[in-house]
Amino acid sequence: MTEVTFAVNEVWLVLAAILVMFMQAGFALVEAGFTQAKHAGNIIMKNVMDFSVGGLTYWAFGFALAYGGSSLGGFLAYGEVFFFNDSSRASEWFFQVVFAATAATIISGALAGRVKFTSYLAYTPFITGLIYPIVTHWVWGSGWLADLGFVDFAGSGVVHMLGGVAALAGVLVVGPRLGKYAPDGSPRAIPGHSLTLGALGVFILWFGWYGFNAGSTLAAVGENIAHPAVTTTLAASAGAVGAMFTAWLVTGKPEVGYTINGVLAGLVGITAGTASIGFGLSIVTGLIAGALMVGSVILLERRGVDDPVGAISVHGTAGLWGLVAVALFSSDATLGPQIVGALAIIAWAFSTSYVVFKLIDRTLGMRVTQEEELIGLDVSEHGSDAYPEFVFQHEVVDLRGLVGELEEATRPGN
Amino acid sequence: MTEVTFAVNEVWLVLAAILVMFMQAGFALVEAGFTQAKHAGNIIMKNVMDFSVGGLTYWAFGFALAYGGSSLGGFLAYGEVFFFNDSSRASEWFFQVVFAATAATIISGALAGRVKFTSYLAYTPFITGLIYPIVTHWVWGSGWLADLGFVDFAGSGVVHMLGGVAALAGVLVVGPRLGKYAPDGSPRAIPGHSLTLGALGVFILWFGWYGFNAGSTLAAVGENIAHPAVTTTLAASAGAVGAMFTAWLVTGKPEVGYTINGVLAGLVGITAGTASIGFGLSIVTGLIAGALMVGSVILLERRGVDDPVGAISVHGTAGLWGLVAVALFSSDATLGPQIVGALAIIAWAFSTSYVVFKLIDRTLGMRVTQEEELIGLDVSEHGSDAYPEFVFQHEVVDLRGLVGELEEATRPGN
Amino acid sequence: MTEVTFAVNEVWLVLAAILVMFMQAGFALVEAGFTQAKHAGNIIMKNVMDFSVGGLTYWAFGFALAYGGSSLGGFLAYGEVFFFNDSSRASEWFFQVVFAATAATIISGALAGRVKFTSYLAYTPFITGLIYPIVTHWVWGSGWLADLGFVDFAGSGVVHMLGGVAALAGVLVVGPRLGKYAPDGSPRAIPGHSLTLGALGVFILWFGWYGFNAGSTLAAVGENIAHPAVTTTLAASAGAVGAMFTAWLVTGKPEVGYTINGVLAGLVGITAGTASIGFGLSIVTGLIAGALMVGSVILLERRGVDDPVGAISVHGTAGLWGLVAVALFSSDATLGPQIVGALAIIAWAFSTSYVVFKLIDRTLGMRVTQEEELIGLDVSEHGSDAYPEFVFQHEVVDLRGLVGELEEATRPGN
Repeated sequence: MTEVTFAVNEVWLVLAAILVMFMQAGFALVEAGFTQAKHAGNIIMKNVMDFSVGGLTYWAFGFALAYGGSSLGGFLAYGEVFFFNDSSRASEWFFQVVFAATAATIISGALAGRVKFTSYLAYTPFITGLIYPIVTHWVWGSGWLADLGFVDFAGSGVVHMLGGVAALAGVLVVGPRLGKYAPDGSPRAIPGHSLTLGALGVFILWFGWYGFNAGSTLAAVGENIAHPAVTTTLAASAGAVGAMFTAWLVTGKPEVGYTINGVLAGLVGITAGTASIGFGLSIVTGLIAGALMVGSVILLERRGVDDPVGAISVHGTAGLWGLVAVALFSSDATLGPQIVGALAIIAWAFSTSYVVFKLIDRTLGMRVTQEEELIGLDVSEHGSDAYPEFVFQHEVVDLRGLVGELEEATRPGN
Repeated sequence: MTEVTFAVNEVWLVLAAILVMFMQAGFALVEAGFTQAKHAGNIIMKNVMDFSVGGLTYWAFGFALAYGGSSLGGFLAYGEVFFFNDSSRASEWFFQVVFAATAATIISGALAGRVKFTSYLAYTPFITGLIYPIVTHWVWGSGWLADLGFVDFAGSGVVHMLGGVAALAGVLVVGPRLGKYAPDGSPRAIPGHSLTLGALGVFILWFGWYGFNAGSTLAAVGENIAHPAVTTTLAASAGAVGAMFTAWLVTGKPEVGYTINGVLAGLVGITAGTASIGFGLSIVTGLIAGALMVGSVILLERRGVDDPVGAISVHGTAGLWGLVAVALFSSDATLGPQIVGALAIIAWAFSTSYVVFKLIDRTLGMRVTQEEELIGLDVSEHGSDAYPEFVFQHEVVDLRGLVGELEEATRPGN
Repeated sequence: MTEVTFAVNEVWLVLAAILVMFMQAGFALVEAGFTQAKHAGNIIMKNVMDFSVGGLTYWAFGFALAYGGSSLGGFLAYGEVFFFNDSSRASEWFFQVVFAATAATIISGALAGRVKFTSYLAYTPFITGLIYPIVTHWVWGSGWLADLGFVDFAGSGVVHMLGGVAALAGVLVVGPRLGKYAPDGSPRAIPGHSLTLGALGVFILWFGWYGFNAGSTLAAVGENIAHPAVTTTLAASAGAVGAMFTAWLVTGKPEVGYTINGVLAGLVGITAGTASIGFGLSIVTGLIAGALMVGSVILLERRGVDDPVGAISVHGTAGLWGLVAVALFSSDATLGPQIVGALAIIAWAFSTSYVVFKLIDRTLGMRVTQEEELIGLDVSEHGSDAYPEFVFQHEVVDLRGLVGELEEATRPGN
């Protein structure tokens, strides 16, 4: 390779990785915006730590277990890149670490509003240092799933479904938020505190996703980097449309939260086949992803799975669909290996995450006390207050009650 | 062209398009921040749909009408790219679709706070699938305006003025928001709910505009991609300064809203001549754009045109100025063709949009009911609430009234 | 250089500069989010003007004083680029102007909430047109510090420490905000109004910093552009971790504000050595930067230096550490020249800024009146209100007082 070719590929890969890194901001805003104000600072801390602790862990172990050079039977890698210090592989590491952080950060949204910060911090190194890297070795590190013919171009399964499944394991361990379910078991809405921040988060994710999908060409010279950009655009658009109309049918309104989550479902859905699915079929992929996500959210909520931001449905359900879609809609993959791979990733991500969450629960305890949950994690866990100057509805309820009583007391005739 | 040259151009065009795509987030925030909280979710929905429905329409029809290969007398294109599926033209399509979405999204701000969501949804395909693509064929698709010597490098007229003029047509059809004008006809301020979100939107637009202007070189090899970046920077800066001082003169204060809209006016103004105007004159272009925008906002408001975010002035007025500026300040264009082109675009965009809006108004109805407008479009149209936990001024007015009455009632002597 | 090589370098440098430009949005959000809502519009205006007035000044004078071609004894440059109009140097100018704007914008945070807008406006041209450009000539323009062997790859000292020191000079001239210190001199917390906006600002800065650090290679062909991206990632991560644990030790909680400022401290700390420090040592650099920043914030607050957003500690203290770290942790620099350079930049930035701030204070007055400060700079300086629809805590205090009195008055027995 000439020096210029090398440079073009580096420019592309580094800029793509920078875009993927920015998805952390998108996740933070989606998760904060879609949950209550009293937990917003905690959400931010979990997102910052996903990338910070995650990045340091990936430097120490993760990268080596995924791409270490030698392979232990196609299951995990090892070699000389523990405590990574090879400047000649810098762009490769950079592109991989931002993916690892993405897998980790999916989980924080599903666990929002009830998990101890220290316990969450204890889980993070497992996903970025162990659970996720090993799966990437299977698929992208010439491991056993790659040998089998399993195809996941940019990570519908490897990143998103894995994160969604790990999130499900976490939710099963910690249980729903206080007040999420009525005594008769019917779910109650706990609306997020800022649709504008949530929507900005979705736009940031969409923006960063071009790095995620098109950057997964890993090089620019000799590659069609624009094809994934187009399928990404069309699937995201179709995801929004699919989710909006599905939600419209179900709820009677073109609801905002479902629609913008539909963008994300469309993006997750196309990720596996972004380079191989044609433009028309990428629209079909996105439409189905959006519709499936809405169904999945409703179903999980009814089954007692409290996922405040819909992360399990957006990443898990649409991620699984993405693995299937690439077999249905392109000639790159066949259904058999896709299903084997999906089941393997689900089994691995769920079992390892469940065990780790359970172990942490038995030792540190996963969940905050009821009082801490009611006060909000910002004050109880961090001594911080995300919006100290604003007045919140619950704060004026007392005032309204008092005024009502006074009115009663001063009514003529009393 | 060698494989490396091709790759460099692709990297540049794809990344520029990604930046332009992110402008959608900027528009959403400017429009939401500059309008009332009770419509914020609706604004987001319109922006998401501008890109989603717009993108799908552009895939089906728009691109073919603009760049289909064959031309119908320089007026519209046709050919084999309906239901676009040509992977070898992916980067071209991607760069064009994000421009189409920009033209569409300009309108949503001007119509904020009073338009039915379904009716807005019905309009979107017309602008991204028909009105806008046909103008791009005239100018960028070797159509009749290109033949005439009309120059609009990155779209002061083709994108921004077109969007602004379509917005004006829409506003004339739907009329002002309730309460915008006092019984004597004098305008009242309806301040936006978040200057910080609005300002963030402006910064995001500025950021994305580098893709818009510098990316319009369409290639990197053999082009000066940095010249547009410099004129963009200087004109935006000068636009802020020009608008700030003009507003200072008029209102007595360096008002925030006018100043940050001045950035946008400067950007719109330089867009036509970004590649040909020199650095010093780009400052003059921006200064004038900022000042004109302030004058235009005040004039339109007095004339009964209620444009909540100033979109008609920012995109329409400054866009027109941009078409003139490129003739005055560069040797690339002459005034005659610029004026002919401007008039043609205005006539086309206004008449087609007016007809479509009128037709929708007669059938679906463009405007929500008075009650829905007062409640806010979020609740009435989407069943959503952008900020359910925060307390708003109108909510404490009742409380204050009650307390006042009580105070009166319990005053000694009563 | 071939045309393709030139194009690759241009693509890299222009896109890196675009990323750095976006840091302005990050600064605006960090500064607005970490301060009170009543000053948010003013913060935005200062940030927009830092870039606008700063950009125009840099066009007129700054660039020429830094890179004008001829040098006056290594102290300042001059030549033919006053009122810059050389299209062939466009990318160079663009990359430099966004750095100049960064240096300027650091100051606005430290001065938040008490400075006259016109006086701030009067200072801006000095830093972007004179104080900053002259230092860049010393270090990056083949000036006397470069000759001495002083190394500051991307600007820990040249940009950040300089901005932090100028901010310190400003704070010493204007004094603390009203109510920051109790009568006995002990500091009081004045929490910022939005942790979510502040955190988004930090993520945007992190994102833009890749352009800042990796872009400082100034070219892509023949350079390792990924090495700085990796050290930037690791140092930012370590900065967050270092600051979080330090704050945890000191305050008893993993406090949000300190942790996210730790990201910035890590970024500032690695900036000087981003291209030469190895990956493992970049983690050490970040950890120390985060811890030092927390100590510096606490120390300065106790000493009566009221810096609302911690800008002096994040940029000044961590910037100084960055200059030392590159000597300790890489073979590119030695401690002697680093200390001489640090002292020279501190002396220059402090003395020139102090004189300018004092002169403005004697003429225009730096500080608003007590009444204006209490009302908030948005209303008093700009006639704007950042959040006109939301209810703030201070607004319900009166209501609560009234209700309390009424309750007393209507109590049975009265």
